[in-house]
Amino acid sequence: MEKQEWLLGIDLGGTTVKLAFVNKEGIIEDKWEIPTNLADNGIHIVSEIASSVKETIAKWPGAILVAAGMGAPGPVDFETGCIYVAVNIGWRNYPLKASLESELGIPVVVDNDANMASFGEFWKGAGEGTNDLVCITLGTGVGGGIIANQELVHGISGAGGELGHITAIPEGGAPCNCGKTGCIETIASATGIVRLSLEEINKKPESLLAKRYHEQGMITAKDLFECVEHQDEASAAVLDKVAKYLGLTAAHVGNCINPDKIVFGGGVSRAGEILLAPVRAYFQQFAFPRVAESTILECASLGNDAGVIGAAGLAHKQHGN
Amino acid sequence: MEKQEWLLGIDLGGTTVKLAFVNKEGIIEDKWEIPTNLADNGIHIVSEIASSVKETIAKWPGAILVAAGMGAPGPVDFETGCIYVAVNIGWRNYPLKASLESELGIPVVVDNDANMASFGEFWKGAGEGTNDLVCITLGTGVGGGIIANQELVHGISGAGGELGHITAIPEGGAPCNCGKTGCIETIASATGIVRLSLEEINKKPESLLAKRYHEQGMITAKDLFECVEHQDEASAAVLDKVAKYLGLTAAHVGNCINPDKIVFGGGVSRAGEILLAPVRAYFQQFAFPRVAESTILECASLGNDAGVIGAAGLAHKQHGN
Repeated sequence: MEKQEWLLGIDLGGTTVKLAFVNKEGIIEDKWEIPTNLADNGIHIVSEIASSVKETIAKWPGAILVAAGMGAPGPVDFETGCIYVAVNIGWRNYPLKASLESELGIPVVVDNDANMASFGEFWKGAGEGTNDLVCITLGTGVGGGIIANQELVHGISGAGGELGHITAIPEGGAPCNCGKTGCIETIASATGIVRLSLEEINKKPESLLAKRYHEQGMITAKDLFECVEHQDEASAAVLDKVAKYLGLTAAHVGNCINPDKIVFGGGVSRAGEILLAPVRAYFQQFAFPRVAESTILECASLGNDAGVIGAAGLAHKQHGN
Repeated sequence: MEKQEWLLGIDLGGTTVKLAFVNKEGIIEDKWEIPTNLADNGIHIVSEIASSVKETIAKWPGAILVAAGMGAPGPVDFETGCIYVAVNIGWRNYPLKASLESELGIPVVVDNDANMASFGEFWKGAGEGTNDLVCITLGTGVGGGIIANQELVHGISGAGGELGHITAIPEGGAPCNCGKTGCIETIASATGIVRLSLEEINKKPESLLAKRYHEQGMITAKDLFECVEHQDEASAAVLDKVAKYLGLTAAHVGNCINPDKIVFGGGVSRAGEILLAPVRAYFQQFAFPRVAESTILECASLGNDAGVIGAAGLAHKQHGN
């Protein structure tokens, strides 16, 4: 019997490594996680991934791995497969593609994790069937990815699609981890929403948001959206600010690419229409009319699997047959 | 003797049609212009182009035209070669590619004029040898084009690369022809610079800029740059505003694409370093550090030939062999 040809998708995070076997139709056949071993500047990560993969594929005698893709949290030299720098992991100019290929014995493609997740949505998620797709991931930070003419845009230094650092507030914005101020990451990330919520709580100590903050001793982006649903004015003001700058940022990218879709993923996007509806309204205001009429804004559909599916998909595209 | 294979490049404007025979190395072998016949909603334009081309190629018995490219002033359905709408010409859903192919008897590729000029700079101009290129054309309006992974970005509705309508001033900006307000076109086009200059002249009636305005009864972008060179403070304030918003806009596009280069063309860009130096400074401020370090800003190099060279180049790419 001929063996089924599968792809291996790997999504490296600071805490866990997500792994999946994915068939050529983009369906996950098996998935699991291992802890990310940060010891010795991440030097053990690749060999631990390889051991785990070999162990797991042994349970599937009817399948064979033909190629692998891996997303890493940092800018990547796509041609050579080197990670320029992955601060959370400890890598610097790390030859990830070469190391993985040597350990696994199959062709490997390496990219930035946000690009891999975007490619997942493009291959089998909310962006399936598009020619041009923009993904904006609203998590602890804000990441992104751009697919133009069905190809990921990497740029000269691996920073293509780094949409979290588009300047939403040119003057007087909050400081960002990147060294600039006013990046959309300082506003529309989970962290940014919490920061804005705390500012509003100070101004409106009688609000439902303030009440919840004092009850819990903390506040999350999820709390903010729940308080908006309870008609809390202070919370609505925070949401309006987030939506305005996110809509403006989406319009900037939309005016560049005029993609079929701009897709929002990450934890914050789970708020769904309560966030998306006002973002769409501001997008309509700030996008070139032709773009406003043709580019669709919606939520991502693959959730946490986007990274491994995208990594497998890119491996399939680059090395599949 | 075997005939030399040439490309035909056509750049359609509201007043003249620029035409050129271009060899496969991107060198112009012959170029000329004919007036744009706007009668009857532009229905005679294509046949007049074809007559002129046939007449001119007859003077070159050693050459044969193998393909043609044409840039048109309006959004284009790149797949079908139809012009959605070209207001200045009178076309609406006009099958330009099909008409030209039928008249000329060679394969034709059609695109937006700004995209063609960008492709010219990519093929044989300031962007030669790049993988990802952004062009911003500062003329009467502001146009643009994006080449990612060596392919023009068209978008779902032909508005990809419409960089003139990126919102530079989200609130309180000047009205733009597109229906929005605060587009970079309202600031960094020749028209925008004149508008800002007149505002400043009202505020600073003693300035050199005001003096020149009253002497001439009018003011141009060129006057503004000349007055800056004469240390006029009012003019420096206008330039600073233009440079700030243009640097911000370039940073938005840079943060999306991280291109090898962002290239400025069009009449206003003839100001050269006096404009580019402050634009670069603001770009550094607003671009993601990795982009600020790697993406180069410079002037376009093909001048008014960019359109015909780009059209010929795209014809070569699509249909050449």
